[in-house]
Amino acid sequence: MDKISELRNLLNSRIAALELEKRKPVSLYEPMAYVLENNAKRIRPLMVLLAFGSVSELPENLCLDTALAVELLHNFTLIHDDIMDQAPVRRGKPTVHIRWNTDTAILSGDALFALTYPFLISAFPDKAAKLVHSFSSYVLEICEGQMLDMELPEKQQVTIHEYIEMIRQKTAVLLGGSLAIGAMAGGAEDWIVDEYYRIGEALGIGFQIQDDLLDAFGEPEKFGKQTGGDIIENKKTFLLIRAFEKANADEKIALNECLKISNSEEKVQKVLELFTKLGIKEETEQEVKKYFLLASEALENLPKEFTSEELKLFIQHIFFREH
Amino acid sequence: MDKISELRNLLNSRIAALELEKRKPVSLYEPMAYVLENNAKRIRPLMVLLAFGSVSELPENLCLDTALAVELLHNFTLIHDDIMDQAPVRRGKPTVHIRWNTDTAILSGDALFALTYPFLISAFPDKAAKLVHSFSSYVLEICEGQMLDMELPEKQQVTIHEYIEMIRQKTAVLLGGSLAIGAMAGGAEDWIVDEYYRIGEALGIGFQIQDDLLDAFGEPEKFGKQTGGDIIENKKTFLLIRAFEKANADEKIALNECLKISNSEEKVQKVLELFTKLGIKEETEQEVKKYFLLASEALENLPKEFTSEELKLFIQHIFFREH
Repeated sequence: MDKISELRNLLNSRIAALELEKRKPVSLYEPMAYVLENNAKRIRPLMVLLAFGSVSELPENLCLDTALAVELLHNFTLIHDDIMDQAPVRRGKPTVHIRWNTDTAILSGDALFALTYPFLISAFPDKAAKLVHSFSSYVLEICEGQMLDMELPEKQQVTIHEYIEMIRQKTAVLLGGSLAIGAMAGGAEDWIVDEYYRIGEALGIGFQIQDDLLDAFGEPEKFGKQTGGDIIENKKTFLLIRAFEKANADEKIALNECLKISNSEEKVQKVLELFTKLGIKEETEQEVKKYFLLASEALENLPKEFTSEELKLFIQHIFFREH
Repeated sequence: MDKISELRNLLNSRIAALELEKRKPVSLYEPMAYVLENNAKRIRPLMVLLAFGSVSELPENLCLDTALAVELLHNFTLIHDDIMDQAPVRRGKPTVHIRWNTDTAILSGDALFALTYPFLISAFPDKAAKLVHSFSSYVLEICEGQMLDMELPEKQQVTIHEYIEMIRQKTAVLLGGSLAIGAMAGGAEDWIVDEYYRIGEALGIGFQIQDDLLDAFGEPEKFGKQTGGDIIENKKTFLLIRAFEKANADEKIALNECLKISNSEEKVQKVLELFTKLGIKEETEQEVKKYFLLASEALENLPKEFTSEELKLFIQHIFFREH
């Protein structure tokens, strides 16, 4: 993964070169610098660069500012999402609205978003219209997905179709978009750009469902955080929604009883037992595999001259986690 | 002003044709439709259209989507500003965060902003890079201005220079930007675009200072709202800042005493007396005139083929209010 580290370093240097912390008013730019200076994996901008490198003979660093735009956009959505989700911590640090305040988080997020577009197109003025149109449509879908996500807890009944549509818009669109933007900047034909989009989108949906799975059945050491959190919070995950869909009348009553248990340990154990009884674990594993297979096959089906080993390895490494 | 009404109708029809209220999720798009359906004067998009018409032989409606982008941007900033300023009412209606809630206001604002860019460039793909760069730089300045404005109440000492810089960024930049964007879309040379920017910027600063003046010394019937509001709230306006700059030690003490008066009527009367004693009214009138003269002269100095009577009449009508 030497190439990946090299590109990640390039991205981190580019971000540092923005010198956001030196701009005025400090109160506006400091929070922007704060969210960007971290040990983030830079997954999305790396996907931009790797897709660009896959379809083009040109060196990846030509596409660096375009990749940067995607990372800035992603961090803008994190700042605003964290306000709405009342999240106190992100990547081990207090979130912007906690460290400063909500007004600052709103405004610094807006400014971060305003910064993105010039970077998106700076190296590709002749493709500006196309890049801007695609990029904006992704942002709109992310907003739609976030709204659906916020409405989830209040909704009486959520179908698995609605749930997948929500994670598609909220998360998968930008992963698809990252590959598509890179391919577009690299001058790929429309059908190749579309194919790249679909690969990233499938990876994103698979990844999110896998996240739900690992939160319930993962090994904490490998997952990187304590499991069972979603169950304790009664979060409507792929697993819980499917469990309600599959349960018979008695099992539905039992599941609803489980959700009311106040002892966390007991609650997690009981819910997991019901999930197991209903075959939810296996079904979810199948669903994850389905999306990852979709992505792998689409990638294999692309003409060899429009894919790269680096991209394949990166996808393998980031998305196909063990569990 | 027949032409103006015609263009305003065109803009309102274009906004209605977006059919935002029909898009899903309704909870995201309804607030966007709500802020846009009103009797707004559409000053900024009209400035885009009139500048376009001034420099170009092409019909204004070619620039309609670009003008729309500026109106969408303006309304996005209003939604977010109203959250930060805790404003309950805008144009006689509850603000979005009051009518719905803060999360909805954040997200609907974001989505409105995301909508803008494709409209900005749709009719001018060959000028997309230039339009996007300018547009984004205006948004950044608006964010900077809003941050400075939020910090104003806490600041011990604000110089008149800092105050003018704040209103320039927060308000005047987008008025300058509206004329510049229209001229740019119309294919004007850079120096003409810059000149248009400066005209709008000067108008914006003059307008804001005039607003401060009218709030203190205007006739309520002509001003359209009760006067004295700024004084009652101890708002740091052009007048109050200049009063503190001009006051001697005794007058400073008197002014500070006035700010503590709890009876509103008495407070307004005493502060106005001090303003009058210090010659603040005349000075502020002079300052307003200075900026408007700057704008008028710049407009007159443009080659005849790059200005229009409609634009001049519009500026006269909107900005040079009686007081």
